[in-house]
Amino acid sequence: MQKNLPDKEKLQKIAEHIKPFIHRTPMLTSTSLNSLAGCELYFKCENFQKTGSFKIRGAMNAVFELGRNAIANGIITHSSGNFAAALAYAASRIGTKATIVMPENVTPSKRDAVLGYGAEIVYSGNVPLDREQKCDEVIASTGAVFVHPSNNINVISGHSSCAIELISDAESLDAVFAPVGGGGLLSGIAIGFKHFSHSTKIFAGEPLNADDAYRSIRSGKIVPQTHPDTIADGLRTSLGDVTFPIIKDHVSEIIRVSEEEIIDAMKLIWERLKIVAEPSGAVAFAALLKNSSLFNNKKIGIIISGGNVNVSALPF
Amino acid sequence: MQKNLPDKEKLQKIAEHIKPFIHRTPMLTSTSLNSLAGCELYFKCENFQKTGSFKIRGAMNAVFELGRNAIANGIITHSSGNFAAALAYAASRIGTKATIVMPENVTPSKRDAVLGYGAEIVYSGNVPLDREQKCDEVIASTGAVFVHPSNNINVISGHSSCAIELISDAESLDAVFAPVGGGGLLSGIAIGFKHFSHSTKIFAGEPLNADDAYRSIRSGKIVPQTHPDTIADGLRTSLGDVTFPIIKDHVSEIIRVSEEEIIDAMKLIWERLKIVAEPSGAVAFAALLKNSSLFNNKKIGIIISGGNVNVSALPF
Repeated sequence: MQKNLPDKEKLQKIAEHIKPFIHRTPMLTSTSLNSLAGCELYFKCENFQKTGSFKIRGAMNAVFELGRNAIANGIITHSSGNFAAALAYAASRIGTKATIVMPENVTPSKRDAVLGYGAEIVYSGNVPLDREQKCDEVIASTGAVFVHPSNNINVISGHSSCAIELISDAESLDAVFAPVGGGGLLSGIAIGFKHFSHSTKIFAGEPLNADDAYRSIRSGKIVPQTHPDTIADGLRTSLGDVTFPIIKDHVSEIIRVSEEEIIDAMKLIWERLKIVAEPSGAVAFAALLKNSSLFNNKKIGIIISGGNVNVSALPF
Repeated sequence: MQKNLPDKEKLQKIAEHIKPFIHRTPMLTSTSLNSLAGCELYFKCENFQKTGSFKIRGAMNAVFELGRNAIANGIITHSSGNFAAALAYAASRIGTKATIVMPENVTPSKRDAVLGYGAEIVYSGNVPLDREQKCDEVIASTGAVFVHPSNNINVISGHSSCAIELISDAESLDAVFAPVGGGGLLSGIAIGFKHFSHSTKIFAGEPLNADDAYRSIRSGKIVPQTHPDTIADGLRTSLGDVTFPIIKDHVSEIIRVSEEEIIDAMKLIWERLKIVAEPSGAVAFAALLKNSSLFNNKKIGIIISGGNVNVSALPF
């Protein structure tokens, strides 16, 4: 384990601390999906999480670790998706102001979720440089503290609580699959399993059309994602200097999946588990399905990361 | 309470008897749907039930009440939907043969579910008379025992287990809403609440375009449904001589809902609860939403009856 990573006791404390503010999400199983995949599947359903995704785990811990005094002038992030709603909700629970920098072309439902939690939205252009500049402007004028959606050890450590819950519901997993975008969830799952279920192997699913994590690990250095073109909108971001070394050290393999494989997995989750998963939330399952023959009769955990999707605009 | 209806102890015994063969389905809540409706909502999620709907509760009890000897030559029903899969599954668990009479135009996924549980399908024409004749032919040649999908007291009594579970998860409900088609679920819910939570009022939701139950109660006699034209395919059938008197005596009101109201309620369930409900499964919620002003701040149970839907052919 690298230096500066939280130890087992620290992760346990974090999980207890954030517990009253999040849902203990269910773990679901399906005999028909087990038959289809040829292994025992344990789905951790973060689509049922507060704000609709796992992101609230890390956001809540990030505000707690900063402490009330440090964020008296508010917190700020840039996100067009699930971390926006999560940080807005976390700020409302701790009683500080959240500012979310969003692109002008943000989905109306995502915008409304953020406003519903009482946060302020500042619009930026639609490219990463614009949003970073806008963040800097707000920070300079307000003294708000920046919280990165994924490349932040406190965010990552909060996400480890998802691993702790899954391990308690499904013991002795042979492997666990999580999606990778910015790498915050994958890093949190990896650290959690290393501490609480050391023998479980960690695998990631990544869209082929946004495969910066795969290319980064292959080349040994961070390769930023430039033109992601995937339906899995939560996985279009790049690894950072905090998430990259954790993933390099602890993840067995990153499995790339096509758009069609993502959509097929998403449809199976909806039809067989009877739950609503967003495209990003189906990527880990797609990765397992693509390689299921390697996991015959094994016990496999699958993280369904979120359920925020426009049901009127489905890909199937 | 009418004569010949099961008493409290009998319902408790039935619930215990079928327990190992069914799922204890979750009860979900949503702060955003509570805000929208202005009351406290407790959703009983039978979409997560074995075979995808509540029907397995009644099917399982029906085969147990008949007993192995009586059904040594098999059981038979006519159904193009959820009862078909439920009876096929129940037969497979008790070790007898099920024959399901289905119309020739049955949905392929429903047909495959029945075959998957090892039942035999006999195709009939697409009108009620055809299927009854076909049932009679099979019964005459095989000695199979007929089990009606809804108008059967053992089927109804099995469905009461759904009420018992909901009452245990959400005490002191002011009202409970269930959908009505043939009336089996509604009758089971009504009898269950009368015995285990007497002060809870029973309401039904029914598609305006298949409103035979509403018209039957109004006119004081069974008015069969002739040309149902609703997306709620599980609710196109008519009340029978067993379900009619139970509903007449124990249901406060039948609330009719339009196709648009059903679709809106279904979409809300998918988007806010993050679960897959079929159109029939959204009808009870649609009925509550239509009259929510009458239930301000009340505690309301809502039965989501099933989740078998073709996600590639959604109405939104």
